[in-house]
Amino acid sequence: MKNILRLSMAQINTCVGDFAGNACKIINAIEQAKAQGSHIVCFPELAVCGYPPEDLLFKNSFVQENTRRLNQIKEKAYGIIAIVGTISRQKRLLFNSAAILADKKIIDIYHKIHLPNYGVFDEKRYFSSGEKFNLYEFRGFRVGVNICEDIWVEDGVINSQAKAGANLILTINASPYHAGKINLRQKMLKAQAKKNKVFIAYINLVGGQDELVFDGQSMLISDKGKVLSLASAFKEELKIIDIDLEKLPQKPKSRKLKIISLCLPEEENTLQPIPPARIKKLEAAEEVFSALVLGTRDYALKNGFSEAILGLSGGIDSSLVAVIAASALGKDNVIGAILPSKFNSPNSSDDAISLANSLGIKHITIPIQEIFEKYLNTLNPHFSGQPWNTAEENLQARIRGNILMALSNKFGWLVLTTGNKSEMGVGYATLYGDMAGGFAVIKDVPKTLVYKLSEFYNRRENKEIIPRRVLEKAPTAELRENQKDSDSLPEYGTLDPILKYYIEEDLSVSQIIKKSFKQEDVLKTARMVDTSEYKRRQSPPGVKITPRAFGRDRRMPIANRFKEVLNNV
Amino acid sequence: MKNILRLSMAQINTCVGDFAGNACKIINAIEQAKAQGSHIVCFPELAVCGYPPEDLLFKNSFVQENTRRLNQIKEKAYGIIAIVGTISRQKRLLFNSAAILADKKIIDIYHKIHLPNYGVFDEKRYFSSGEKFNLYEFRGFRVGVNICEDIWVEDGVINSQAKAGANLILTINASPYHAGKINLRQKMLKAQAKKNKVFIAYINLVGGQDELVFDGQSMLISDKGKVLSLASAFKEELKIIDIDLEKLPQKPKSRKLKIISLCLPEEENTLQPIPPARIKKLEAAEEVFSALVLGTRDYALKNGFSEAILGLSGGIDSSLVAVIAASALGKDNVIGAILPSKFNSPNSSDDAISLANSLGIKHITIPIQEIFEKYLNTLNPHFSGQPWNTAEENLQARIRGNILMALSNKFGWLVLTTGNKSEMGVGYATLYGDMAGGFAVIKDVPKTLVYKLSEFYNRRENKEIIPRRVLEKAPTAELRENQKDSDSLPEYGTLDPILKYYIEEDLSVSQIIKKSFKQEDVLKTARMVDTSEYKRRQSPPGVKITPRAFGRDRRMPIANRFKEVLNNV
Repeated sequence: MKNILRLSMAQINTCVGDFAGNACKIINAIEQAKAQGSHIVCFPELAVCGYPPEDLLFKNSFVQENTRRLNQIKEKAYGIIAIVGTISRQKRLLFNSAAILADKKIIDIYHKIHLPNYGVFDEKRYFSSGEKFNLYEFRGFRVGVNICEDIWVEDGVINSQAKAGANLILTINASPYHAGKINLRQKMLKAQAKKNKVFIAYINLVGGQDELVFDGQSMLISDKGKVLSLASAFKEELKIIDIDLEKLPQKPKSRKLKIISLCLPEEENTLQPIPPARIKKLEAAEEVFSALVLGTRDYALKNGFSEAILGLSGGIDSSLVAVIAASALGKDNVIGAILPSKFNSPNSSDDAISLANSLGIKHITIPIQEIFEKYLNTLNPHFSGQPWNTAEENLQARIRGNILMALSNKFGWLVLTTGNKSEMGVGYATLYGDMAGGFAVIKDVPKTLVYKLSEFYNRRENKEIIPRRVLEKAPTAELRENQKDSDSLPEYGTLDPILKYYIEEDLSVSQIIKKSFKQEDVLKTARMVDTSEYKRRQSPPGVKITPRAFGRDRRMPIANRFKEVLNNV
Repeated sequence: MKNILRLSMAQINTCVGDFAGNACKIINAIEQAKAQGSHIVCFPELAVCGYPPEDLLFKNSFVQENTRRLNQIKEKAYGIIAIVGTISRQKRLLFNSAAILADKKIIDIYHKIHLPNYGVFDEKRYFSSGEKFNLYEFRGFRVGVNICEDIWVEDGVINSQAKAGANLILTINASPYHAGKINLRQKMLKAQAKKNKVFIAYINLVGGQDELVFDGQSMLISDKGKVLSLASAFKEELKIIDIDLEKLPQKPKSRKLKIISLCLPEEENTLQPIPPARIKKLEAAEEVFSALVLGTRDYALKNGFSEAILGLSGGIDSSLVAVIAASALGKDNVIGAILPSKFNSPNSSDDAISLANSLGIKHITIPIQEIFEKYLNTLNPHFSGQPWNTAEENLQARIRGNILMALSNKFGWLVLTTGNKSEMGVGYATLYGDMAGGFAVIKDVPKTLVYKLSEFYNRRENKEIIPRRVLEKAPTAELRENQKDSDSLPEYGTLDPILKYYIEEDLSVSQIIKKSFKQEDVLKTARMVDTSEYKRRQSPPGVKITPRAFGRDRRMPIANRFKEVLNNV
């Protein structure tokens, strides 16, 4: 056991602004890591204040509280090196930093150099860029520290750190999840490790924060690009790994740099070796499902909700949301409300009840027909003989929204909405109706993926919890006689790829048509997306699971007259 | 008339993405300016595509369409110099640029150097920074061009331009309005003009775009810091001014720089001189009122609405929104809906009707009591004997929201909401109830300012259009017996300054208490602000009139456990 560096990757679930809670988690992990003989323990980016703190960073009191908590944490950092993500202020500038703690002191502080300002990130709104780094030396080896975006930049700081002789890079992260992101990350890390001839320990945040989920999956990569260790997905973990120093790549050492010596505890001879790590990646559907569960659980718990209610229509979307909610909060904490009108087929209620029963959640039935008729009578003199239109359709959805919100206001239940990304994309949803609620669980899940996740869930449970008929019937909003989604929309198998090209990849309608979609489908879809921005602006937050979600990730004007011309189709 | 530079400041109202419309306005203004003998005509920042284009900039087709339109505009630019705000792309980089057009050619292009990435601005998300500038010489004088943020930066590009010999700076802008911004701008421009010994012509955008209003008020400032000319506030104008070249400050000319000669038309001897400009600034209340009118009009028109509906409660907020709506869209295009329950005093309906009549808008009355009772009967078995709470209160507001939305869906009317900034701040508003609608006209107007604007309006109209009783009665939501706002909130005279310190100035609760507010008022207010972020996230857009509005301007997490401690009170 000589020449082992024992590293603890503390993949913790912080909450923004919860300084007491975050500090407690950090101190616990330091003590656990020490008890297990770790030399170094690393925490995620901005672990002290939570990530992303957004405009709370403009409050002096927030920055001061961060400093106060970091000082408390520092007092516990002895007999071990702790690397903690923290805000720091120098003169009037704010930095996104990593504090290197040892012997109850902040022995150094690194400021993030590459600040992301795209996608969901606004870091240039808050932070100044760091300009330099030091390396940390122990037993002749050199360690570099950097933060999240820093590791993604080719020829960025990691390059300079490697050239200055770093053998091992510790990178602390708050890297938001989207489906398949782990593959992107591993590809990038392997390339950086090989190119720069370094080991990389990648420590990631875990947990949900508003629309973002952080998936954890912290890992160690060798200089040959091999994944030596991978921590859990979507779960807190103190992942302890032994790095054999003899296996670190040897390299010439630059003399120009400030080198800080790390005095590591010398008790390793008494340590039990850590058994080699099991490397387990999730299958695609399980990964997304887990993200939705964690995102929903954390949104509820971090906002003080333990119970949730949702409308069960007997359709696939509400069925999937129900199983996610039950997985997130426990089946005893989920209430399904069945809210039929005369346009709902009896099968719909049966399917909803059948789902609720097999899932084991409570359900209540509140017919809306009488309220609906009372509205129609009241409005009749003012509707002046106009034909039935979306006014009457939306009214039903809004009565349902009102009932769910009334139960929420009465009992403190969080209302979960059930709209999917395809509907949100084309605006096939009722504002203040089915869009009414605190959290939009599958807002970023395209309809075709809703089916896959439902199938996955039944398969995993080895039981048709979501009834077969729900998986097989044609999607319908049931807001008028014999309504089908396909009356208004292209089939979802066509719609979803068009939406992906248009929303996530910014392709023009001409480019999409060239991928052999029908011109009318593409034009119609693009128009529907463009003209429903006002609805999305008022939608509740939901878990981001694609490379570009609605919300902070996609900032579109509402007043927008841009209409693409069809070029070279 | 020798040695006059005739400058047209084309203060136009663009719309984002409306390339055809914007190009048409630009070409018309070029031709008008030419017809009136102008040598140079300047347009606002990003005039070709509209400002701010946000994530539309990620669409190649958007950038290409901008280029195509700029080329069309270029063909009309002869016999005059046109300076046009435009997107430009070089290699893979996007710039926020000013195209200098002459003789049907783009003779030069300047890229904005200082990109704002704070407040409502995200320009570093999209653009790269320019790095250099050229000067433009005519008859021995030198002109520099720059863009918006550039002029605000002390020792920024204007400084370098002046040092290189510029006598006159043309700065093109899209500078969003907030109350009193014109004073800030003039103070800054005067300081820059004096410090750099230059004349500055400041051309600003006018019009509403989602939450922003641009107030125009383009102006010319002398090197002595005198405002020589000021264009209209909140209106389109082609402001033509004669600059006496003899009065431009003389200065040494740097030789290191690329100088582009401007060949100006030589017909000035035949020109009629422009009479000296009248300088008129608006009084404070008129300025805000005008901003709200323009913001509301442009939101409606740019989104295709010509008529609007709002709920009239007989209170001050809905009264003010009604007069703004009537000013924006014409009284024949505004419908007031009076939606009484049993908790509304008869006075309330009377006041609402009286306002509608004196304002000359249509009104309809739709009592909600029966629908409310039908909901209560339906929910009764599920409310299981729980006491009356916000569930029942909110239900009334939501029935009203549903009725307004049903009328909107039936007749295509835009629903205007009537909540003010004080209510939005503390969450004293019902999600999907009084918050339901397309545009929240006074969302950024604190309650105390609502009174001032109402008084201003009556004064301006020289008539009590908003009834005296409305101005004098105690504010109430009328959602239960004898309810008063002051049951739940500090008096607005106390609440509003606390909110301003907390929201707009980021002061801590301790700092606010020190300004001699009661500790309990400050703590309660801060908690209410912090815990109502989820509501604001789902609110419709509304006109920004303060230095920090809710929305893009203030990006707060919903899950947020930050609770300030009371330090040194």
